[in-house]
Amino acid sequence: MYDRQHILSELVQPASTKIVLLVMDGVGDVPNEKGKTPLQVAKKPNLDQLAKQSDLGQTIPVMHGVTPGSGPGHLALFGYDPVKYQIGRGILEALGSDVPVGEKDVVARANFATIQGNIVVDRRAGRPSTEESSKVVEKLARSIQSIEDVKISFYPGKEHRFVVKLTADGLDDRLSDADPQKEGKPFIYTQPLVAEAEKTSRIVNKLLDEIRKVLSNEPKMNCALIRGFSKYPKLPQFPQVYKLKAAAVATYPMYRGIAKLVGMEVIQTGNTVKEEFETVKTAWKDFDFFYVHVKKTDSYGEDGDFDSKVHVIEEVDGVLPILLQLQPDVLVVTGDHSTPVSLKSHSWHPVPLMIHSKHTRRGLSSSFDEFECARGSLGTIYAVDVMGLILAHALRLEKFGA
Amino acid sequence: MYDRQHILSELVQPASTKIVLLVMDGVGDVPNEKGKTPLQVAKKPNLDQLAKQSDLGQTIPVMHGVTPGSGPGHLALFGYDPVKYQIGRGILEALGSDVPVGEKDVVARANFATIQGNIVVDRRAGRPSTEESSKVVEKLARSIQSIEDVKISFYPGKEHRFVVKLTADGLDDRLSDADPQKEGKPFIYTQPLVAEAEKTSRIVNKLLDEIRKVLSNEPKMNCALIRGFSKYPKLPQFPQVYKLKAAAVATYPMYRGIAKLVGMEVIQTGNTVKEEFETVKTAWKDFDFFYVHVKKTDSYGEDGDFDSKVHVIEEVDGVLPILLQLQPDVLVVTGDHSTPVSLKSHSWHPVPLMIHSKHTRRGLSSSFDEFECARGSLGTIYAVDVMGLILAHALRLEKFGA
Repeated sequence: MYDRQHILSELVQPASTKIVLLVMDGVGDVPNEKGKTPLQVAKKPNLDQLAKQSDLGQTIPVMHGVTPGSGPGHLALFGYDPVKYQIGRGILEALGSDVPVGEKDVVARANFATIQGNIVVDRRAGRPSTEESSKVVEKLARSIQSIEDVKISFYPGKEHRFVVKLTADGLDDRLSDADPQKEGKPFIYTQPLVAEAEKTSRIVNKLLDEIRKVLSNEPKMNCALIRGFSKYPKLPQFPQVYKLKAAAVATYPMYRGIAKLVGMEVIQTGNTVKEEFETVKTAWKDFDFFYVHVKKTDSYGEDGDFDSKVHVIEEVDGVLPILLQLQPDVLVVTGDHSTPVSLKSHSWHPVPLMIHSKHTRRGLSSSFDEFECARGSLGTIYAVDVMGLILAHALRLEKFGA
Repeated sequence: MYDRQHILSELVQPASTKIVLLVMDGVGDVPNEKGKTPLQVAKKPNLDQLAKQSDLGQTIPVMHGVTPGSGPGHLALFGYDPVKYQIGRGILEALGSDVPVGEKDVVARANFATIQGNIVVDRRAGRPSTEESSKVVEKLARSIQSIEDVKISFYPGKEHRFVVKLTADGLDDRLSDADPQKEGKPFIYTQPLVAEAEKTSRIVNKLLDEIRKVLSNEPKMNCALIRGFSKYPKLPQFPQVYKLKAAAVATYPMYRGIAKLVGMEVIQTGNTVKEEFETVKTAWKDFDFFYVHVKKTDSYGEDGDFDSKVHVIEEVDGVLPILLQLQPDVLVVTGDHSTPVSLKSHSWHPVPLMIHSKHTRRGLSSSFDEFECARGSLGTIYAVDVMGLILAHALRLEKFGA
């Protein structure tokens, strides 16, 4: 398939229409033992009413059968081919921890691990509490500030995880992982994958040695494994590509970070869905496009908590009128992937999609759920095609050819 | 995606089966205020009876969200990737005006415009009537016959539009538009986009000056803007690619022109749908494949005239027995794009598709309309995939692989 984003960018024209893309993270599910999904069990009169006036379909985030991470799931919805634009794990971990990343930085995910002799015996150092590990991260930060001319920064993460950031001119992220991947194997250093990364590789390997020195008295967290080296990726910028003034409203740093990567303006919001929707209302005049992220549908899917996932859907439905009263020209409700309660993880299942505008084929469906979406008027489409539909319904695309 | 046409061409085998591809231009629509589309309102017992014995689906002409012009809409149905084969606007305008175009020609769309000093103040010269502008085109034709060794021809179009044709060896169409695109901007000349187009560029710019001289006394039509330079495109030829003796039956020059581009034989017909179908009957023995084009579904969509669009569908249904009595092995009824009455223009909405043959899965649908098609057994497919299905139902494709 051709580069859809490029074709769209050539057809886009400015307009005054307003768009809301509401992403209920991991909303898609599979039926429970009673044969119902959370979307089917939830009482959601507003979403169901909207379904009657909308086009429904389902999306494939990356490829049939492929379970996406949050990065590819979102990039696809924003119209970026998630196979072409692969974002390093280091940068996503950094964004998820609210670590500031600039153009000179290389960031990476790090694990505390336990080493005996030269053998990595526990890749997670006995899963320390976040509190315990944060103290050790502080110790590293006090002890190691630079290597050669490269500034080194450490940021705490959850449990055994933390983020390492290297800052200097001329760093390169094309390095192999300094991680044996399996326990019982010898500790390994990073290697440059290209000549330009030789300096960065040398610095990282000196850093690994320094960390082992600083941690030599720790009973478990006596070593670090570092992987997923990444620079700040240069992505086509959403506002330029689509001629849209775009805002992101999200309660979790990871999603604000992804939005920032594509050039959206992140606006401050509260912790609840209601506060997020109120934020959209407050900023309504200042933007054409609002990406609004609801996290907890995914969190409860990951927890395997069916009832709480139902409640989050009902919470969204209850405050949906805040968005509806703004009368967006296009309102899209979807997810970035499915997170079935039974799997307690992201999955490959198609994702429910609902597009509301004046120009829909409406009338085919009466409820927003996996089954109505599977039989909806949009069919089963790739998530990367959603932006084209959004722009079309916003009357922001010129005709292709004469 | 791989080149589907190439794969088909390798699988095609000769057969004696007969195929009719009936294109109801712009037939797809969205519901009116009563929740019905023209296809749903129209009384069409023959089409609905056919639906019960057919496979239904819906097509995406180019890409989800993208509204196609007539060129890409038709090329896709004929199995040509509409992104790979982009036909210049000049050639389509020429085909639509029945201008003969040969291999040595470069054609372009021209507008009469009003210029004051060097500023283009009206890109359409006050929208003259076709009669008025035709007289001015005649004046140009009398005054300018050649520049250097290049023959210049002028053909009238509608209102402010006309077609310019340059004929000589070695002309090249890779030129920028001689059109400021916006009013209040200075007149601009064309520029060659490649070295090979330098001569053509020089000729066009001399022509622009000549035209201004000839028109210097016109009150409004005192200048021409010329754009969309195109040579006759070299497309794979339908009869060779698919091993089909193919005929085109169409009442409008544009569609005859597109058919001619892909190598179909255009046969003479009348002005009504009945006459078109009778033409198919008369020529039945001489061809394997008939492309039949019904224009007015699109025209009434563009006019925003719901009832008349309904009547055209009923007119087609009424004379459909003429085609049915020929017992084609494959009869396809579809559109090249949707033209919703509410939008008064082509749109991005999926297009209804019905394939009838002895080998369909039939039995799932009871009516030919947007909703039955959205839930049909073929699913939502790209228009470029229709030719594969046609050839398959005509038992004209060998097995792929052993």
